[in-house]
Amino acid sequence: MGEPTRNNVHEGTYRVGVDIGGTKIEAVLVDAAGSVAASHRVPARRGAGNVVEDVTALVRTVAGEHLGELAGVGIGTPGQVDSEAGTVSHVVNLDIDTLALGPEVGERLGGIPVRVENDVNAAALGAAQLVPGARGEGTVVFLNFGTGLAAGVIVDGVLQHGFSGAAGEVGHIPIDPNRFACPCGQRGCLETVCSGASVQRLWPADGRPAMPDLIERAHCEQADAVRVLGIVSHAMGDALQIVGQAFDPRVIIVGGGMAKTGEPLLDVMSDELFRREADCPFLKGLHLADRLRLAPVDQPIGALGAALAV
Amino acid sequence: MGEPTRNNVHEGTYRVGVDIGGTKIEAVLVDAAGSVAASHRVPARRGAGNVVEDVTALVRTVAGEHLGELAGVGIGTPGQVDSEAGTVSHVVNLDIDTLALGPEVGERLGGIPVRVENDVNAAALGAAQLVPGARGEGTVVFLNFGTGLAAGVIVDGVLQHGFSGAAGEVGHIPIDPNRFACPCGQRGCLETVCSGASVQRLWPADGRPAMPDLIERAHCEQADAVRVLGIVSHAMGDALQIVGQAFDPRVIIVGGGMAKTGEPLLDVMSDELFRREADCPFLKGLHLADRLRLAPVDQPIGALGAALAV
Ligand SMILES: [Zn+2]
Ligand SMILES: [Zn+2]
Repeated sequence: MGEPTRNNVHEGTYRVGVDIGGTKIEAVLVDAAGSVAASHRVPARRGAGNVVEDVTALVRTVAGEHLGELAGVGIGTPGQVDSEAGTVSHVVNLDIDTLALGPEVGERLGGIPVRVENDVNAAALGAAQLVPGARGEGTVVFLNFGTGLAAGVIVDGVLQHGFSGAAGEVGHIPIDPNRFACPCGQRGCLETVCSGASVQRLWPADGRPAMPDLIERAHCEQADAVRVLGIVSHAMGDALQIVGQAFDPRVIIVGGGMAKTGEPLLDVMSDELFRREADCPFLKGLHLADRLRLAPVDQPIGALGAALAV
Repeated sequence: MGEPTRNNVHEGTYRVGVDIGGTKIEAVLVDAAGSVAASHRVPARRGAGNVVEDVTALVRTVAGEHLGELAGVGIGTPGQVDSEAGTVSHVVNLDIDTLALGPEVGERLGGIPVRVENDVNAAALGAAQLVPGARGEGTVVFLNFGTGLAAGVIVDGVLQHGFSGAAGEVGHIPIDPNRFACPCGQRGCLETVCSGASVQRLWPADGRPAMPDLIERAHCEQADAVRVLGIVSHAMGDALQIVGQAFDPRVIIVGGGMAKTGEPLLDVMSDELFRREADCPFLKGLHLADRLRLAPVDQPIGALGAALAV
């Protein structure tokens, strides 16, 4: 896709971050100050061999003359990640069963250290770097409303993985009174109602983004839209109370594809919280709606965060 | 209540921990190694003045000859705590509206630093010190099934308070499909079903502890016991999935009055988790049941933890 964009390259130690997505792979060169100095992207090809090849080439391209100065490479990927081993498995969208992604890429790049993170965790780090007020001390939760629903948790700037790498996997907590079946095998998981993919299923909008359409039609009092938005926002309220009361984070960043809905999405969430707070002084005292921020949708937060994870 | 018990007093810096309960106040002297060197308790008297007086006297008693060597005093108390200010409010059981507990006690003890913690957080620290495998790195969640339901969260040995001191307040997350009214104003809070007090309400056992009776009768296939235990264990499963998947802790310590039920309580929780895991490989892979531990019921974990919070 042409030459990489370059700007503001500072002296210092560079890192490259790579974000593997279902349709594209994106990479950024990050300088010592944590700023993006260059970025590049290519369409994603399926298969473990292609992914290793594409990621390696992308690192070389985006690093350019700084390849020899890289402190390391970070890679954010969907699937189940073992960060210690640098492996990833069950990347269904890219036909990857199991792949020693970190070791394979590191070897091709002459032994550069490679850190592999789950894509939501990487996006959490990137978003926390860019969202005003999210850097520094305290707890920040990044809630990803994408194909699935999951949280990335950052405490004092450090990503929390948990004992088995499952910290923040709130999407498969069953709470939905509608008890929709979930691919995970349970019924009523949060993810079955308020992930981006679920909203698309509950409100098919002829291929257009579902959430903006759903919100608009509910505002026009279209009965089925009001009903479906009620189900979705109820699950969103549950998700926000779960992360809000478990972690009591300073900031809750709303990310994933659904964040493209923009402010109307935060309004839906805030209205749901206000409805709940009306009866509950404890919840009202938490002011959770004040802590909501939209993830930047026009920035490579996944790739940036992967670099910061190095 | 007689002379304080003393044993194994080592050289070093001492701390005193005080646990304020609804019926008694308990204090321990903790040595530099974190071991209990002396303990003492008195019945609780109501009213802010009495509480300050009793806590101060208890610190003097339990510290004995080491009063001059105290590095500090920690106090765990029910109610809403502001640890920064050392204040506590809304201690309904002891008729306390607002009290500058830390400053008041500190002044009476000649300016010793006093740390005030919420009682669940203090118990979490104490339990994590005593439960095998709960010390050290990683995340430990202490789930308190007492009058209410709340969690104390410890990451790498450090208590997590959150942005507004509400970290771990999972009891008021609404999930219960029975939607019982909660004193907090919401309906269906976890706490309305599976706190110690709620089980006592759902299964009145003539003043005897409800949970052991309920479990025993459910084992004997008594129909209403099976039904009520089903409701309670369902909420327990939700609580365990919420803390399990949000924090992915290494160890989940089950504490509060209900912990006195002993192993049969862990069996109920494990059975509920196994039922849910049967359909869900993701949940099965977390092995949450393996992470459950009972808090020690015969040790002053609240007072010990208050001392460790200093
Ligand atoms: Zn699920
Ligand atoms: Zn409640």
